[in-house]
Amino acid sequence: MEHLNQSFTVQYQYNIFFTSALFSPENELLNSFLVNLNPAVTVKKILFIIDEGVANAHPALIKEIQTYFYKYNRTQLVQDILVIPGGEVVKNDTRYFDQVLEAINVHGIDRHSFVAAIGGGAVLDMAGYAATVAHRGIKHIRIPSTVLSQNDSGVGVKNGINYFNKKNFLGTFSPPVAVFNDELFLSTLSDRDWRSGIAEAIKVALIKDAEFFEWLEANATALAARDTEAMNYQIWKCAKLHLEHIRSADPFENGSARPLDFGHWSAHKLEYLTNFEVRHGEAVAMGIALDSVYSNLSGRITADEAQRVINLIQQLGFELTHPLLQVTEGNSPILQGLEEFREHLGGQLTITLLTGIGSGEEIHEMDAEILKQAAEILNNQSVTIQH
Amino acid sequence: MEHLNQSFTVQYQYNIFFTSALFSPENELLNSFLVNLNPAVTVKKILFIIDEGVANAHPALIKEIQTYFYKYNRTQLVQDILVIPGGEVVKNDTRYFDQVLEAINVHGIDRHSFVAAIGGGAVLDMAGYAATVAHRGIKHIRIPSTVLSQNDSGVGVKNGINYFNKKNFLGTFSPPVAVFNDELFLSTLSDRDWRSGIAEAIKVALIKDAEFFEWLEANATALAARDTEAMNYQIWKCAKLHLEHIRSADPFENGSARPLDFGHWSAHKLEYLTNFEVRHGEAVAMGIALDSVYSNLSGRITADEAQRVINLIQQLGFELTHPLLQVTEGNSPILQGLEEFREHLGGQLTITLLTGIGSGEEIHEMDAEILKQAAEILNNQSVTIQH
Repeated sequence: MEHLNQSFTVQYQYNIFFTSALFSPENELLNSFLVNLNPAVTVKKILFIIDEGVANAHPALIKEIQTYFYKYNRTQLVQDILVIPGGEVVKNDTRYFDQVLEAINVHGIDRHSFVAAIGGGAVLDMAGYAATVAHRGIKHIRIPSTVLSQNDSGVGVKNGINYFNKKNFLGTFSPPVAVFNDELFLSTLSDRDWRSGIAEAIKVALIKDAEFFEWLEANATALAARDTEAMNYQIWKCAKLHLEHIRSADPFENGSARPLDFGHWSAHKLEYLTNFEVRHGEAVAMGIALDSVYSNLSGRITADEAQRVINLIQQLGFELTHPLLQVTEGNSPILQGLEEFREHLGGQLTITLLTGIGSGEEIHEMDAEILKQAAEILNNQSVTIQH
Repeated sequence: MEHLNQSFTVQYQYNIFFTSALFSPENELLNSFLVNLNPAVTVKKILFIIDEGVANAHPALIKEIQTYFYKYNRTQLVQDILVIPGGEVVKNDTRYFDQVLEAINVHGIDRHSFVAAIGGGAVLDMAGYAATVAHRGIKHIRIPSTVLSQNDSGVGVKNGINYFNKKNFLGTFSPPVAVFNDELFLSTLSDRDWRSGIAEAIKVALIKDAEFFEWLEANATALAARDTEAMNYQIWKCAKLHLEHIRSADPFENGSARPLDFGHWSAHKLEYLTNFEVRHGEAVAMGIALDSVYSNLSGRITADEAQRVINLIQQLGFELTHPLLQVTEGNSPILQGLEEFREHLGGQLTITLLTGIGSGEEIHEMDAEILKQAAEILNNQSVTIQH
């Protein structure tokens, strides 16, 4: 019998809101979003999952949320607010994933109710994964609390947890229904966390937007000095570029290319090898430095361009490299990381290198000898690179 | 700062192939599909998961698969073929889900490789769920081995496992890359399993296609007598109507309506209550009878129409009802089933009832008294219904 063909498109749409004091009783933004999404549904519940780090830094937060929904009572707050550890541990230990599923089950959260996660990228990834597989997908809301999650991971479409010791071995491509970026959460970050996320802005500027790279150069000092206005613009612009990229390319990554992973292949491995003592953004800054010097040594960008990247990374206060990024022998961890990256993507290895400030190209092979040289140059803190 | 809007569409496309002896060395269908999908990827692996029932009924199957990929060696067969139990147990016990993940990990199955599942709906649901969350989605192929999975569940977009004692509590909406319906697998089915899947054809005919319903009436005897030609057409037509429905409506079910669940709300509960001794198709036949009589008692269809439904169900050899479908008191299991169905859908209760042979309407409330009467009528095997 003749074969049957199935073909359809699915439309995805969500907003990223920028606000201050999301749970202030005067701030109607969240309530108005919740009430207006699918107004035909009369009883909607909302379950909150909060990163312990955020709960500790903002001791009044839980009370504020309760007061908020006492006032805006068209959405039914699940009083039992789940506080879970932040950081990679929450993705490594499936106990936290189970805890979220349990809460969804016990409180009868259905496909028209909400799971809202407040926290860093790890908490959002894990809670998002739980929400998107429970009942084949509960609406999830992301309220990122770090620079990294407000400008990058929190605004995208990926969820996941680690499994078999592999980063994001389990996960989904499934957009949130909304993202709320609240600047107040940034004020209590450590300097290290404040800085860390800016690595993603360097990354996206380098492959997409030379003008934004120049803006970062001009504002590096203000950003390092915790200037709020500069930070707000950095987040807005970086989120915008990420969203545009996701939209224009291959949102659910059916191909092999992942230009937004520029600088990331070595960073993933380094995070794992240091048991996440090196923060994601710190590792990405080192990964960017490595791939930028590699781009120079392989003749793709000039020494001056590579130098500008290194200078910006240093001005922001990042380290340039790490001993574990060195290539000392054929099975150096970093070369294993390259193979693992290929396997996670599937198919052919695809790495983005720079062809200029603001433009990248995809390559399918990396030369171990050039990689060794690039790592050595950075290790020596030498800024003298090939002309 | 002004909010950012994200909006994109994702295109989904797959074929359902109909064949006989998929793994015969002369049958190039599967090989040609595998080679032509994304030809740029040079090394593709394929991992098979096989339903124990199928492996037992076709003892040469594993050897045939090995011989097939020995000949068609552009796809690398994972020699370690996983055989797992069929039926609901494989969705109830997460050990099997873990086994599939483990195999994906150990054999380095990446996003351009394939997980192919051969079996009944339960095995396809579980393996599909594992495949769609591993690496955020490995390409999965469905090779349904039962009438039910060839004409309905196997050709759709849903994957899942049971959790917290709830059917499909965990799952994804994620289409396979292809479905291969092999008529040879049907030849070894028990009469019970042969018949069972036809319930889905009755369902989709009743809500979508009066002509197909008439065809089922005319061919009921041939179908019950295991006529292959009639069965092949039944499967092709039923799969076609399911695919058209998925495509035309709301593929990932963001709304509350699920017309393809006609007759299913009570069936789900009955399967659980009988610990799956009542087969899905058998429960659906009873659920269709119940909702058809309810449709008559509530003035939506004539007694003659309801009678035709009952006659067809009986001619195919199904039971009309079950003691557990009776409404004896306010908290009869069946009324609880109604509430659980609402919760799983989320939001408002939405049930499809008939307004004629071939057309349905959505309602948002069911009357317990009418339900009680409908169940009683069927329980008395009485075919005298209200005129």
